Amino acid sequence: MIQLTRKMRKDLILLKDLSREEIEAILDRGEYWADNPNSRLSASPRNVDNPIVTNLFFEPSTRTRFSFEVAAQKLGYHVLNFDPKSSSTEKGETLYDTLKTFEAMGVSAAIIRTSEENILQEISDKVSVSVINAGAGANEHPSQGLLDLLTMRQYFSNIQGLKVAIVGDIKHSRVANSNIIALEKFGASVLLTGPKEWMPSGLETQVCSIDEAILSADVIMLLRVQRERHSAKVFDSEKYFQDFGLTRARYAMMQKHAVIMHPAPFNRGVEIDGDLVESPRSLIYKQISNGVAIRMAILERSVGL
Amino acid sequence: MIQLTRKMRKDLILLKDLSREEIEAILDRGEYWADNPNSRLSASPRNVDNPIVTNLFFEPSTRTRFSFEVAAQKLGYHVLNFDPKSSSTEKGETLYDTLKTFEAMGVSAAIIRTSEENILQEISDKVSVSVINAGAGANEHPSQGLLDLLTMRQYFSNIQGLKVAIVGDIKHSRVANSNIIALEKFGASVLLTGPKEWMPSGLETQVCSIDEAILSADVIMLLRVQRERHSAKVFDSEKYFQDFGLTRARYAMMQKHAVIMHPAPFNRGVEIDGDLVESPRSLIYKQISNGVAIRMAILERSVGL
Amino acid sequence: MIQLTRKMRKDLILLKDLSREEIEAILDRGEYWADNPNSRLSASPRNVDNPIVTNLFFEPSTRTRFSFEVAAQKLGYHVLNFDPKSSSTEKGETLYDTLKTFEAMGVSAAIIRTSEENILQEISDKVSVSVINAGAGANEHPSQGLLDLLTMRQYFSNIQGLKVAIVGDIKHSRVANSNIIALEKFGASVLLTGPKEWMPSGLETQVCSIDEAILSADVIMLLRVQRERHSAKVFDSEKYFQDFGLTRARYAMMQKHAVIMHPAPFNRGVEIDGDLVESPRSLIYKQISNGVAIRMAILERSVGL
Repeated sequence: MIQLTRKMRKDLILLKDLSREEIEAILDRGEYWADNPNSRLSASPRNVDNPIVTNLFFEPSTRTRFSFEVAAQKLGYHVLNFDPKSSSTEKGETLYDTLKTFEAMGVSAAIIRTSEENILQEISDKVSVSVINAGAGANEHPSQGLLDLLTMRQYFSNIQGLKVAIVGDIKHSRVANSNIIALEKFGASVLLTGPKEWMPSGLETQVCSIDEAILSADVIMLLRVQRERHSAKVFDSEKYFQDFGLTRARYAMMQKHAVIMHPAPFNRGVEIDGDLVESPRSLIYKQISNGVAIRMAILERSVGL
Repeated sequence: MIQLTRKMRKDLILLKDLSREEIEAILDRGEYWADNPNSRLSASPRNVDNPIVTNLFFEPSTRTRFSFEVAAQKLGYHVLNFDPKSSSTEKGETLYDTLKTFEAMGVSAAIIRTSEENILQEISDKVSVSVINAGAGANEHPSQGLLDLLTMRQYFSNIQGLKVAIVGDIKHSRVANSNIIALEKFGASVLLTGPKEWMPSGLETQVCSIDEAILSADVIMLLRVQRERHSAKVFDSEKYFQDFGLTRARYAMMQKHAVIMHPAPFNRGVEIDGDLVESPRSLIYKQISNGVAIRMAILERSVGL
Repeated sequence: MIQLTRKMRKDLILLKDLSREEIEAILDRGEYWADNPNSRLSASPRNVDNPIVTNLFFEPSTRTRFSFEVAAQKLGYHVLNFDPKSSSTEKGETLYDTLKTFEAMGVSAAIIRTSEENILQEISDKVSVSVINAGAGANEHPSQGLLDLLTMRQYFSNIQGLKVAIVGDIKHSRVANSNIIALEKFGASVLLTGPKEWMPSGLETQVCSIDEAILSADVIMLLRVQRERHSAKVFDSEKYFQDFGLTRARYAMMQKHAVIMHPAPFNRGVEIDGDLVESPRSLIYKQISNGVAIRMAILERSVGL
């Protein structure tokens, strides 16, 4: 049981399983790094050996992988970039055996992206290396959820009572899922909008029209259209932009204090008018910066600091 | 001649060419790192510039490459990961020209895996960068041999007089070859067993049945079945497991003090019953840990420390 | 305007746009690093956070990429190796969006190789991350031009008045182009020779025969034959070697003080007799060493040191 508790503290698998207090502790440390991006040296005493962490991306993700890599570098941690696709002998090896190997080599944490939704929960109690979920199937993407929370908390001071509209393919989005879970823990209300076939079952009461979302939300959170999931034939980018994209007309309808978020990479002219990415009310680049800060907090936690 | 001597001290090409004393010096330093995995800072004075080493893997090997990379990181060395497969302009370039280039850039050592059995010996005297053999054809895999020796020496205190049974494709295994060479230098006796077509010529006197090996050995060293070398048609995994795998029945027949070793990655249910990997008498994860320690010793030696 | 000036100081896009004084400042610092390759620790005070730079190679280049990576490692900078080819979701993303992302992550400089000749000039004023041209189409390869200048200045003390013969595919060579531009800024005279179809228009007065080049030049600068641009049918390596290669006969005709240069990788027996690469008058390996030194100077400049 003690072993299990120790593991629960160090892994980051699902926001669903974290208490509001645990999330707040990560946000606080992330905010510290956001405010003090260059303060590593005072934070890491020189007589402690630098931890080694490994990236294990079974699905491609340049952005999240680099964000974790930059976070590790800023902390002075070593990073191993394991590319399962190019590893021939390892092909048949299970994730468990791969993690046990890294564990034996002295690796402290594994940052894992996988298409298997539940494998991280199943495996984490069996290994002593910390497991960090960098995106698991359509389930959760907790570091994205945390950086989004941090970005909202920084801007609005308080998440409680915020109205957040999430626009797009809610059903298949681990980003949406982590945000819905975390925002509700913090007392925000979530509106969902997008093509009918992309709305999740079980959350019907939160589904609304794009106009209602735009008019009433404090935060318009756009999801990336995952073109790789849709064949060119069935997906019409232009129609999506007209129906659900953040056009200039919709931007004009937003509340004066409302802000735009997007997990990136964005498709200009599909989810959002190209010029609005850099508009004063866009927090998109702030999200990217906060991504490094929150991942520094996640990595410190994973190695037991 | 002096130049040559200097090179002989720094390269690691074949255990065959090292004296027992030279091997013991590496084992001693490896054991130091195994016992003190986090003592880098006292070992590397800060006013010495950190050496740069390069991985040059012409054959895939995630495991050995990462083991060397972790070893280098623990020593504070920089690592360049050169992937010859993805290098288009370099395709026609000889290994000599590649090494001369790294040498001119200031690289101290090259960790090389290649399918060419004798190229490292031919090339090493022509370059001043140290050459470390990370697996050359079916010839030798000296760092694996050294980490296996270290693991046996740690467990049994003394290698002399040990009886080590190596099971599997002896003929094509550089791991087996390095172990046979090194174990004999230290006065251990080596038994070989496996399918008849995989037994080497020249060592017939050491070949025995799997039962004799299991019953009499102090160390059962299982070799990985290199599936990539055998077409699915000709190789029957289940039959191999029944004929030569470490089943629970064979495990029960082992001497009470005997231990299991495997260079990994292992195929559970082929070379070994899946559950026995984590059995108390398995040294498999210890081998992986020792791999990092012995490679720290090898890297230090290669850069002249 | 102030912003623009700041950017002009930090980017390295075209030697054409740098004054002789600006180039000399880079050469001086590069020479310092060439003379003091291990003096990083005194140069980088420990209480300054280490900058992060990223390699962005849209065309393959092991050599230039590693040279920048070694330079960064020697300075204590962190390096991100971004491989656009293996990045699926990023495929549609523009270079601008990629750079803005790295900028938001806290990256200080991007080292870019691209087939698009003018994109770096267009983009550099729009981002605050410093842009370093590591080869843009057939336009310029400024770090190669600078390391070549440094190598000549070291050897001859003065570039003014030198006669430099460039041999090969001048028309498609960014190396040749950067050298022509830089050498003329420093008062050297440049001769061009090679197959007629590879001579550039606009520089006809400098074109001469291979014999005239060999007999009169202080520096014979051989260009790599870019085999990947020519089908085996149309390009006859042996004929090229006889017509324009540095054979032993031509080597014997060179002035006694003249030297050989080549940007590497070289094709032995095509641009140059294999044995002459290591001849006493070859500066080829010195160029590779100077490449690291000059790129240390370029990186320091790019991060504002």
